[in-house]
Amino acid sequence: MQKIYYLWALNIGIKQAIIIGMAKIKGRTEIAELGEFGLIDMLTEPFKASRKTTIKGVGDDAAVIEASKSTAMVVTTDLMVEGIDFDLTYFPPKHLGYKAVTKGISDIVAMNALPEQVTISLAISSKISVEFLKDFYAGVEFACREAEVDLVGGDTSASVTGLTISITAVGRAKKEKIVYRSGAKVNDLICITGSLGAPYLGLKLLQRESRVLEGVVGEKPQFEGFEYLLERYLKPRARYDIVRSLAAEGVVPTAMIDLSDGLASDLMQICRSSLCGARIYLERMPIARQCSALGEQMHIDPVTAALNGGEDYELLFTLPLEAREKVAVLGCIDIIGHITEPQTGCFLVTPDGGEIELRAQGFVKKSE
Amino acid sequence: MQKIYYLWALNIGIKQAIIIGMAKIKGRTEIAELGEFGLIDMLTEPFKASRKTTIKGVGDDAAVIEASKSTAMVVTTDLMVEGIDFDLTYFPPKHLGYKAVTKGISDIVAMNALPEQVTISLAISSKISVEFLKDFYAGVEFACREAEVDLVGGDTSASVTGLTISITAVGRAKKEKIVYRSGAKVNDLICITGSLGAPYLGLKLLQRESRVLEGVVGEKPQFEGFEYLLERYLKPRARYDIVRSLAAEGVVPTAMIDLSDGLASDLMQICRSSLCGARIYLERMPIARQCSALGEQMHIDPVTAALNGGEDYELLFTLPLEAREKVAVLGCIDIIGHITEPQTGCFLVTPDGGEIELRAQGFVKKSE
Repeated sequence: MQKIYYLWALNIGIKQAIIIGMAKIKGRTEIAELGEFGLIDMLTEPFKASRKTTIKGVGDDAAVIEASKSTAMVVTTDLMVEGIDFDLTYFPPKHLGYKAVTKGISDIVAMNALPEQVTISLAISSKISVEFLKDFYAGVEFACREAEVDLVGGDTSASVTGLTISITAVGRAKKEKIVYRSGAKVNDLICITGSLGAPYLGLKLLQRESRVLEGVVGEKPQFEGFEYLLERYLKPRARYDIVRSLAAEGVVPTAMIDLSDGLASDLMQICRSSLCGARIYLERMPIARQCSALGEQMHIDPVTAALNGGEDYELLFTLPLEAREKVAVLGCIDIIGHITEPQTGCFLVTPDGGEIELRAQGFVKKSE
Repeated sequence: MQKIYYLWALNIGIKQAIIIGMAKIKGRTEIAELGEFGLIDMLTEPFKASRKTTIKGVGDDAAVIEASKSTAMVVTTDLMVEGIDFDLTYFPPKHLGYKAVTKGISDIVAMNALPEQVTISLAISSKISVEFLKDFYAGVEFACREAEVDLVGGDTSASVTGLTISITAVGRAKKEKIVYRSGAKVNDLICITGSLGAPYLGLKLLQRESRVLEGVVGEKPQFEGFEYLLERYLKPRARYDIVRSLAAEGVVPTAMIDLSDGLASDLMQICRSSLCGARIYLERMPIARQCSALGEQMHIDPVTAALNGGEDYELLFTLPLEAREKVAVLGCIDIIGHITEPQTGCFLVTPDGGEIELRAQGFVKKSE
């Protein structure tokens, strides 16, 4: 189709109509050439916060906005796109609604704040029925009730193809309790909650069974023994309990992030923001038994799943050494390593003392 | 494809895997059977606000959340979907970025609050280039600077097809200044800012020229004389200036909404929330000269465009009679009618005294 572009300089109002094909004005750079982080950096670079109420803009799990003298609101927004972030072949709508809420509030929790409100917007294609949406909102409602969060708004739009979900979450904290990615200090302990890799393996299991059963009638998928993996993928719970526990123990992490892209990528985000390096230890990685079992069946290294699988929605945070005992009291937290000088890089240390350099996607051995 | 659904009751955890096709569990109701408002009502009905900080949840232009003793934050979220809300054939990316910000902050303004922060999330298909995104964000940046708003976050995701834009806007106001849709009283004046119908006619013009020039090389579209219509469609400005003007005159509207769905639909929203009726007068409708001119060319009734075109991003509000003189001082505001008893319905009064019942889509004559 002939492309018509009616352009004018935004700062001078309408002066002249110019008709040009997009290709005629500028070159075309593929987004893949920059990668997601490079793209976001480039696009948001010109934006400088000008409002006094903007405490923290782009660059953390959530934006921080002044509420009162002593408190701040944290606001975050996320997208879930059909065919990219979920597949309706094996994602029940109720779970999708639940997970959408989790995805939003997990970013709030990562700021050491408690979530209070969410909005959910949907772009809906014609294949989506009212019954689907009722189920979806039943999941939203369940997650909201569980996390003591109010659904306060949203928008619905038609969509040409596919379902797109947009979640905005709002939380609140005392200003001095808010934790950024940028506060990690050398020798700080690196802590994680829960276990890693299960959601990724849950997804792989669903994909396998979906492939196996395609076109087959009357057969059931083989999920026995892997329920934990499925639950972690289909119904992940944000760790707001940890924010409460840390507060009860009087512990404020020096840096925190939620594990959505995978431990390697998210730890590197902390290191990048805090200008530091890190060492984590292979034998301290909390990997569930079901991960190892399915990993063996499917020839997937559970350590790779833990490092790069993503969607764990656990918390990764750093603490000063002296907080070690308070963390032990909390129970469900593992200390997996420590922060190092910036020039030392980010490495996984194997039991034999070898060091594997962490990469945002995949990892390579440095030495053994 | 065989559908695999792995369901469990969300409140009891994983118990049992059930494999069923979606059609087997429940009937299928098309969304169109309910309509957008019916759908939203049905889906959000089970949600009750439980947080003390939630002052107003679902059901207005924006949610209202307690910030401090005296102030509240207002939060709103909107979607713009390619092929539904915009067509990239004739929507330049810079303008799209500008309009996305306008769409978000217009809802904040409609609460009589001033916007302070926005987040923009994008689901991007492979046809979108880095250059497109740079232009898009240049438009976002321009709109943010103009409205004194900070871009504080967002998310990017891949998309299988088409561009989806999600905008969240955050604003702030003294609690007693916040205006809801529900406060209109009998005999209140009905006021609107600016003029109506121009964006709809701008869209019709772009669609016409796009059709005419499809496959044609070297020809220019015929836009002369209709620049105002194009600007109103491609680069609408939210009326934050009105919030400032009303504050300067010490006027607080009794009810307010932004004109995004069309005057008829939006006035009916106020009447529905305020439990009242309305009379607006045809000869008082502010319709720009270019609307009448293009309307004549294209056989589009400019009054229909004004009532049902939508995307005006002007403000519709109600005021007590005694505020009449203060509004006159502001200049750019038209008084188009008044609020009536609920049982009297919502009507457009023609110069000969006829009454036309307002409908959310289209309108029908009642009597003449």
